[in-house]
Amino acid sequence: MIFKLECTLITSKPVKADDVERLKRLVEPLLQKGAPKAKTEGEQDQVKLDLFSIRDEGIDVGISSTRFVRPHSAILRVKKLLSRELGRQKTGIRGIDIKSYTAEMDLEREALAAFEVPFADLKFEGLRCYVSFKGMDERAFEEGYPDRVINLIRKKVKSQYYEGKAEYWNLLWRSPKKDIAWEKDPSEEMIKLNWIKQGPSKGRWFFFPPMASIMRAMEDLVIGEVLLPLGFKEVVAPHLIPFDIWVKTGHMEGVPGEIYYVSEPSTRNPDEWSHFSDLVNVTRETPDFGDMVTKPVGGITYAQCPVIYWSLEGRTLDPKQLPIKVFERKAVSCRYESGGRHGIERADEFHRIEPVFIGTREQMLSLRMELIERLHHVLEKVLHLDWRMAWVTPFYMQQAGEVMEEEEREEAIPEEITKIDLREREKGTIDFEAWMPYKKGWLEFQNLSIFDKYTKAFNIKAPKDDLWSGCAGIGLERWCASFLAQKGLDPGKWDFPIKGVGESIRFL
Amino acid sequence: MIFKLECTLITSKPVKADDVERLKRLVEPLLQKGAPKAKTEGEQDQVKLDLFSIRDEGIDVGISSTRFVRPHSAILRVKKLLSRELGRQKTGIRGIDIKSYTAEMDLEREALAAFEVPFADLKFEGLRCYVSFKGMDERAFEEGYPDRVINLIRKKVKSQYYEGKAEYWNLLWRSPKKDIAWEKDPSEEMIKLNWIKQGPSKGRWFFFPPMASIMRAMEDLVIGEVLLPLGFKEVVAPHLIPFDIWVKTGHMEGVPGEIYYVSEPSTRNPDEWSHFSDLVNVTRETPDFGDMVTKPVGGITYAQCPVIYWSLEGRTLDPKQLPIKVFERKAVSCRYESGGRHGIERADEFHRIEPVFIGTREQMLSLRMELIERLHHVLEKVLHLDWRMAWVTPFYMQQAGEVMEEEEREEAIPEEITKIDLREREKGTIDFEAWMPYKKGWLEFQNLSIFDKYTKAFNIKAPKDDLWSGCAGIGLERWCASFLAQKGLDPGKWDFPIKGVGESIRFL
Repeated sequence: MIFKLECTLITSKPVKADDVERLKRLVEPLLQKGAPKAKTEGEQDQVKLDLFSIRDEGIDVGISSTRFVRPHSAILRVKKLLSRELGRQKTGIRGIDIKSYTAEMDLEREALAAFEVPFADLKFEGLRCYVSFKGMDERAFEEGYPDRVINLIRKKVKSQYYEGKAEYWNLLWRSPKKDIAWEKDPSEEMIKLNWIKQGPSKGRWFFFPPMASIMRAMEDLVIGEVLLPLGFKEVVAPHLIPFDIWVKTGHMEGVPGEIYYVSEPSTRNPDEWSHFSDLVNVTRETPDFGDMVTKPVGGITYAQCPVIYWSLEGRTLDPKQLPIKVFERKAVSCRYESGGRHGIERADEFHRIEPVFIGTREQMLSLRMELIERLHHVLEKVLHLDWRMAWVTPFYMQQAGEVMEEEEREEAIPEEITKIDLREREKGTIDFEAWMPYKKGWLEFQNLSIFDKYTKAFNIKAPKDDLWSGCAGIGLERWCASFLAQKGLDPGKWDFPIKGVGESIRFL
Repeated sequence: MIFKLECTLITSKPVKADDVERLKRLVEPLLQKGAPKAKTEGEQDQVKLDLFSIRDEGIDVGISSTRFVRPHSAILRVKKLLSRELGRQKTGIRGIDIKSYTAEMDLEREALAAFEVPFADLKFEGLRCYVSFKGMDERAFEEGYPDRVINLIRKKVKSQYYEGKAEYWNLLWRSPKKDIAWEKDPSEEMIKLNWIKQGPSKGRWFFFPPMASIMRAMEDLVIGEVLLPLGFKEVVAPHLIPFDIWVKTGHMEGVPGEIYYVSEPSTRNPDEWSHFSDLVNVTRETPDFGDMVTKPVGGITYAQCPVIYWSLEGRTLDPKQLPIKVFERKAVSCRYESGGRHGIERADEFHRIEPVFIGTREQMLSLRMELIERLHHVLEKVLHLDWRMAWVTPFYMQQAGEVMEEEEREEAIPEEITKIDLREREKGTIDFEAWMPYKKGWLEFQNLSIFDKYTKAFNIKAPKDDLWSGCAGIGLERWCASFLAQKGLDPGKWDFPIKGVGESIRFL
C-alpha cells in the first residue's frame, strides 16, 4: 500500500524559519511509532517525511508510508508534539488543513463493478485501487475514518462476489415425516373463522380469543418446557431502541430499510398543540405534523438481544454466575416487510421470545446443545411437527458483509439429534424450519446462534475468560403457523391440547 | 342565532335571466328542510332567501337563518336541485364560490379571554360571539365544519371555566390501614440492588430477573384472580395505531403531545440505503435520515382499548354472547411524559393489561361491580395493600372538553365494598389509588370506566339494545410500585410469595 498525506498545521503566529531543522529532528522519530517490528527488510514500513517547511500561515507537512503506519495517525502525533514545543514560544496550532490524502492498495480480487464510498473518490485498475480521501477533518482522522473507508472498500468488493449467490445452507437434521392434516393456508382459513383480523394497519393482525389462546399455549410451552428447565430467567426490555445500540450491533448499517422509526412530540405542552387539536376537532382528520414532531430518535425492537447486551455493557461478570441465562418476551418486534408480507407468518409486527446466554466458549457450546435437545423434545414429542435444522449464514452477518467462506459439504444426516455435526460449526447460526404443506415449502420458525461479536461490541467481560454469547429468536406467530399449517384448525384433532380455542366472537 | 351566507353557484355557461323566478320558486321550499317543527311562533326558524340573482358567471345566492337550519346545508340542497334543473339545459354547476358566511350566537357564559379557532375569525361582545367563517370550500360544508366550529367555540368557553380547577375527585371507599414496611422510594433502592436499570433511552427501564419476576407475578395475579374467574378471554392487538382510530376515540385531539410517533422507511431496497449504510460504517454514527423515512403513519399504543373497539367496528353482536369480555396484555404502551417522569411508576414505556367489556347498560353496571369485588379481594386478601377508590373526571374526557358538571358531595364511606355509592354514577371512571409511604401521597395504579361513547364512535351494535362498554387500565409497573413502596424489597417479609426474586446479576 502507499499512503500520501499533504497538509498544513495552521499556527497562531508565524514560526521562526531557523527553527525548522530542530523541529524536523524532533518529528522524524515519531513517524515510525505504532508500526510492528518488521521481520525482513521487505516488510519494513517505508515511512517518510516528504515535506517539512515553514510558512507564515503554518507548517507544511508531507508524510508517506507503505504499510502499517497511517499518515493520518502520524500527523496527530506530530501535531501533539509540535503543540508542546511551540507552546513554549506562545505559539499555538489551530488545526490541520488537509491538502490531499491518497492511498493506493491491492485488492484480493478485482472489483466486478465500480462503486462509491463516502469520504473518498475511487479509481480501479485491475487489482489496484486508487483512493483519494475527501471531506475529512481532524476529527475524522481521530475517529479513524480513513481506516474504515479502506475496510469498507475491501468489504464491498468481497460482497460483489457473494451477491446473487444462494444463502449458505447445510442440513444438520431432519425429523421423521409426520401425518399432515390438511393443505390449506392457516391464515386464510382463520380469517374466515374470525380467529384473526387483518389490521388496523398493513402487516398487522388482531387475534381474537381462539388465536390468542394458541399463541399463549406456544409461549407457555417454550418457556415451561425449554427455557425454565434450563435455568433461564425472565428480564423485561424496553422496545424503543436508540440508534447508538444498533450502530454497535450492526443493525443500523445492515437493515435501516426494515426499521419502524420513532419520533417524539416536540413539546408536551397542550397550549402549543391547541391549533393542531382544534384542526382535528373540526376536520376529523389528522393534520400535517410539521415541526410538532421530532426527527426519529430511535426505532422499534427488531430483535430483543441488543438491549439485553446493552444492560451488561462494559461490565465484568462474576464467573460463579456464568453462564448468564435470561430471556425476554415483552418487547414487541416490528420489521418493515413491504412486499414480502404473508399472513401471520410474515407480518410487520410480531412476538418473539429471545433467550440470551453469556459465558465461556465451552459453556456456550454445551448450552447450545442443551437447547437443541429441549427444542427437539418439544417439537417431536409435544407438537409432533415435521421440521429440520440447518447451519446457515445468518442474515445480519450477510448484511454486514461478514459472509462466512465455508464450503458446502455433503454428509450423512444422523438419526439422533445428539449426533448432529457441529464440528467446525462453532460461531454461527442454526435455522429451525417447519414444513408448510399449503405452499409445499419450508418456513424458518426460529434460529439459534452463538458468537463473540456482541460480547466484544458491548465490552462484556469476565476476569479470566473471553466471553461468548448466544441468542435464539423464537417467533411465536411462526410456531403457531407451523403447527396450524400441519395440524389444521380442528382442536379436537390436535395431539397437543390447547385450552380456550372455542368459538370466536360472532357477528350477525 | 343568526347565520348569513352569501355565495355564487358557478355555472358552466350563463343561465337565462328570464328563468330566475321559476328557479327561485323551486328553491324556496327547500330551505326549511331539516328544521324540526316549531311549537310556538317564537321558536320558528326564520330562514330567508336574501338574494337570488343571475349573472354571467353564475347564480348569486344569499341565505340567512336563525335557528336549526344551517345555510351551509341549505346551499348544498339548492345546488343539487339546480344542478338537476339546469342539467336539462346542458348547463352544469361547477362549484360554490363562498363570498361570506357569518354567524352570531349567544354563549352560556362570557368568554374569559379571547381565543382562536380554525376556519373562523371571532369577536366577543359580552355573551355575544360574532363568527366569520373563512377558508372553507364545498367539501368543508359537506363535512359540516361550520357546525363543528360552533361546537368548538362553546367547548372552549366552557373549558375556560374549568381550567385550573382541581380534578373532580370523590372518595368511594378506603381500605383499612395496613402495616407499612418502610418509607423508601422502591425505584431508587432497586437501582442499587441491580433489580432495574434506567435506559436505554429516557423514561424507560430494563428489568433484571428480580423485578421481572415481580411484574410477572402481578400479571398472573390480575389474570388468574380477577379476569379469568369473571370469564374474560385474551385477545392480542397490534401496538402501532393508525391515526384514524385515535380521531374516533378523541386521543388525536386530546393528547397529541403525549404520543410516540412512528414512521416507516421510504423504501426497503438496500441499494437505496447503501449510502446511508456506508456512512454508518465509516462514521459509527447515525446520519440524518432526510427523506429516507416517511412522515408519521401512526403512533405507539397509548391504551389498548381503541384497537379492541376497532376490531368490532360496524358489527352487530350476537345478544347470546353478551357481554363480550376480553383483555389485552401484549401491546406495549408508550406515553411521552417529559418532566413528569418518576421511577418505574411514571415511565414513558410501560405494560398494562386492559380488559374491555361490551353489553347492555345493565350488564355493564353489574360487571363493573363484579370487577370491583374481585379487585377488592386481590388488593385486600392477597396483597394486603393500603388503597382507596374515587369517582373522578377521567383525563381523556377532560382533554376532550367533555367535563362532567357534577357537584362534589360529602358522604359517608361504607365499610363494605358492595355498599359503595354508585347511584348517579353510571357513565364515568373510578380511580384506584395506593398509598406511597415514601412520598406521603397516593398513586393511581389503575382505573375502571363504563360509558357508551366508544360503542357509538365505532358503531358497535346489538339487534335490540343500545350497547355500552367498559374498560380498565391495569398498570403493571404501578401495581408493582404500590406493592413495593408499602412492603419493601425483602421477599422474606412479603405475605404474597413471589417466585424467583433471588439475587440479581452481579457485576465485579
